[in-house]
Amino acid sequence: MKKGILFVVSAPAGCGKGTILERVLKDKKYYYSVSATTRKPRPNEKDGVNYRFLNKAEFETLIEKQEFLEYAQYCDNYYGTLKAPIEENLLQGKHVILEIEVQGAMKVRAIRPDAKFIFIAPPSFETLRQRLEHRGTETPEVIEKRVNAAKRELALKEQYDYCIVNDVLEEAVKDFRSIVRAEELKVQP
Amino acid sequence: MKKGILFVVSAPAGCGKGTILERVLKDKKYYYSVSATTRKPRPNEKDGVNYRFLNKAEFETLIEKQEFLEYAQYCDNYYGTLKAPIEENLLQGKHVILEIEVQGAMKVRAIRPDAKFIFIAPPSFETLRQRLEHRGTETPEVIEKRVNAAKRELALKEQYDYCIVNDVLEEAVKDFRSIVRAEELKVQP
Repeated sequence: MKKGILFVVSAPAGCGKGTILERVLKDKKYYYSVSATTRKPRPNEKDGVNYRFLNKAEFETLIEKQEFLEYAQYCDNYYGTLKAPIEENLLQGKHVILEIEVQGAMKVRAIRPDAKFIFIAPPSFETLRQRLEHRGTETPEVIEKRVNAAKRELALKEQYDYCIVNDVLEEAVKDFRSIVRAEELKVQP
Repeated sequence: MKKGILFVVSAPAGCGKGTILERVLKDKKYYYSVSATTRKPRPNEKDGVNYRFLNKAEFETLIEKQEFLEYAQYCDNYYGTLKAPIEENLLQGKHVILEIEVQGAMKVRAIRPDAKFIFIAPPSFETLRQRLEHRGTETPEVIEKRVNAAKRELALKEQYDYCIVNDVLEEAVKDFRSIVRAEELKVQP
């Protein structure tokens, strides 16, 4: 069986990454990589679906055993990507989608140069601001912070293989599928 | 304006390359590179459409002026690809499709490493043989020669970036478009 391909996907908040991936992942040929974390589950979060919830000791044992492709600490909690489920799924011929922020993606790039890196960008910062405002869940200050963070992250898109501008959702989903198909058609070196 | 991409396409005879390209080229974003030749035009061939017909002196002057991306001699005739129309169309933002046999493609690869190389393969040699027989224009000996030539050419597909297996025409056309779209989405280095 032909091995699957590892796709690493990053996007600033509000770029519609979640909606694009939701559509793409309907196809059974993908496996969505679930992150491990030591933070407490929120009321409607399920272990193995939203995150793999571990306690600190468990997480640190896995770090020692070098079971993580990458991991990081935010606000006293660990977040990381386990190697084993990714490898198993690739060997079964599934494409693995790893959704991760830019710093994590760059760590993965160093270890897995065979992975393909996709950046999802907003059509403009104005659109991004409008989308965040439209959500209605964030204060103006938080929106301003997010837009500025997006500007910093966008500068890193040069480090990615592909960039999809999410203007029209249908087109962005089609673009994502085109990238995957083209990678499938690549002649193996 | 964003520059177009040069796509070099090769396929053994009978792989349906002509039909795939005919479909793809309906889109105005492509320019099909017409070869120059010193061979005499056949009754229904038009200058500038099937070939650019030149006499030997004209062709040799262009060789001296290094106007060819590649050229070769077969049966006392020259065949070649002129650089100028390719460059002009790429600058205008059009993707250029250069249909060429494997040896010519390898020459182009050496000069234009930025070009993308697509190989179109038959689903099997048995299918290829059946397609050639179905055409009814070739003798069994010629068909045998073509199938053997295809086997030799297929060994060179490793030199290409992408390989499309033309089993179902619709799928092959879609694959071609996916490759082009993915290349458009690539982050410029």
